[in-house]
Amino acid sequence: MEHNLEHTIALLTCTPAALNALLRDLPEAWTLRNEGEKTWSVFDVVGHLIYAERMNWIPRARMLLQFGESRAFEPFDRTGYVRESQGKSLGQLLDEFARVRSESLGELRALNLQPEDLARRGRHPAVGVVTLSELLATWAAHDLTHLHQISRIMAHQYREAVGPWSKFLGVLQCAGHSSP
Amino acid sequence: MEHNLEHTIALLTCTPAALNALLRDLPEAWTLRNEGEKTWSVFDVVGHLIYAERMNWIPRARMLLQFGESRAFEPFDRTGYVRESQGKSLGQLLDEFARVRSESLGELRALNLQPEDLARRGRHPAVGVVTLSELLATWAAHDLTHLHQISRIMAHQYREAVGPWSKFLGVLQCAGHSSP
Repeated sequence: MEHNLEHTIALLTCTPAALNALLRDLPEAWTLRNEGEKTWSVFDVVGHLIYAERMNWIPRARMLLQFGESRAFEPFDRTGYVRESQGKSLGQLLDEFARVRSESLGELRALNLQPEDLARRGRHPAVGVVTLSELLATWAAHDLTHLHQISRIMAHQYREAVGPWSKFLGVLQCAGHSSP
Repeated sequence: MEHNLEHTIALLTCTPAALNALLRDLPEAWTLRNEGEKTWSVFDVVGHLIYAERMNWIPRARMLLQFGESRAFEPFDRTGYVRESQGKSLGQLLDEFARVRSESLGELRALNLQPEDLARRGRHPAVGVVTLSELLATWAAHDLTHLHQISRIMAHQYREAVGPWSKFLGVLQCAGHSSP
């Protein structure tokens, strides 16, 4: 389907509460373990979502609207999340994600984007010319890629425990294409 | 990590609220579309979770405790979800999933399982001998495989809309190993 701004906002609005309901009361065995060396835990993923919220979506939308294709977005630091998470609990990160997401959505609404704005173009440092519509659709799909990753990281913890059922569980066949 | 009954119960407790927070307020464009012919929508997946809750987990645990390896579980009907969902709204299905899950967890607690019970064995019609521990771990991992699937079904709707970002979004590389 085509990008639809209201659909994007609806999804972006729901993600923090969904992660909160899924993760806040879980034992750390689910949230602090990862999928092996150089992979992320659920805790790391939530830190990354906060960092992306501060650095990526609205800042890039503003840059696109201001500079068009003449100036590339700042490259995104995939390890920047470490600074967001240090010394914090998962509960603190979930609160912070809800707050920064709510602020971003407020800023997005304040931009009062019209259909013609969605076709405006900017420049990504790696992939080149992109539209505002693509940027906003990617913001929503980025939530989904990390929900996908979170479910895979958690399922990985029971990879052995499920015994012969493992072959029926699709998430255990997932090759980790959304790991860092 | 090994199966841990308290960790399993913690996860099973959180899933209905997580799905509710993610899905209840979304437009149908996210929840009624699928990934193509003979694939499930988010709505179908929630119906399947309800059907599995009624037919699979506690009924199989009871059968294992009662008959051991002498009698195989009933095969699971992967299309049984259709009967659960017909004529209902997604909101009704989410309410129903929360209710049947709460009932199952009540029954699980009433079994008052001891560590030695978790090693007891039953017979799966396809994979053969399984333990109660493996059955309960699979119950939790089954929630995660369908959360993984839901995030993939939803992301699929924006497959074109994200433009050149698609190569960075792991969920869009997922081959659908958890589809029906």
